[in-house]
Amino acid sequence: MADTIFQKILSGDIPCHQVYRDDQVLAFLDISPLSEGHTLVIPVEPAETVDQLSDESAAAIGRVLPRIARAVMEATGCKHYNILQNNGAPAHQAVFHVHFHIIPKYDDGRGLGVGWEPIGTLDRDAGAALAARIAGAIAND
Amino acid sequence: MADTIFQKILSGDIPCHQVYRDDQVLAFLDISPLSEGHTLVIPVEPAETVDQLSDESAAAIGRVLPRIARAVMEATGCKHYNILQNNGAPAHQAVFHVHFHIIPKYDDGRGLGVGWEPIGTLDRDAGAALAARIAGAIAND
Repeated sequence: MADTIFQKILSGDIPCHQVYRDDQVLAFLDISPLSEGHTLVIPVEPAETVDQLSDESAAAIGRVLPRIARAVMEATGCKHYNILQNNGAPAHQAVFHVHFHIIPKYDDGRGLGVGWEPIGTLDRDAGAALAARIAGAIAND
Repeated sequence: MADTIFQKILSGDIPCHQVYRDDQVLAFLDISPLSEGHTLVIPVEPAETVDQLSDESAAAIGRVLPRIARAVMEATGCKHYNILQNNGAPAHQAVFHVHFHIIPKYDDGRGLGVGWEPIGTLDRDAGAALAARIAGAIAND
């Protein structure tokens, strides 16, 4: 895994506007926010994508999301927000260290733009077959 | 909190294409997928938004995301994906029970559309003041 700007922030070589830190998680303001309060939550553990992250590190991130979300809401007054986590450049990942964005959505439209084009309604038989393949892969993980 | 379709799925009143279940988490295929393998991960605990979710339930969801993501990748062959969690109708939430979308992104563009328009570079002083407010809100939570 290449050294990323987030690892330099974790090590203290690059400063950040920190909002939270514990043994497994760091949270800080995005330097190029989509809206006021745009916060990044990252694991201390180095991993490029969520599928490469340990269960423990992923649980530690999950555990702090409610607290950080409440604090962003309180500090900014935002009522709505998106949590986004991108894996791979085609999925809009720009820094290859896992990060969860907490992005306030304001009445003026500032925040995350969500493009939503379903491919159709899930076919019952195809859905059952696909679900069985995914369930099997989890069972064999 | 109103009774949602996801609570009916949790109770078994409405069927789903289940891929994973434990005491705290259920995962199943989205019935109106953005791409093949689009999966929803929800807490058993009833909560409309992440800020209303218990730390334990949020940690339980975080813990299973790597496993479910790997399984979706294995079953579909997708190499890239987004994890999205929406809070509030203006932030594109449609069912008011917390859910994390795992959405494969394919080379043909199928998957989540991400609209990304930064409001500018974070001002150092304003950033420091905002980070202090958020950190203070977390400390007082």
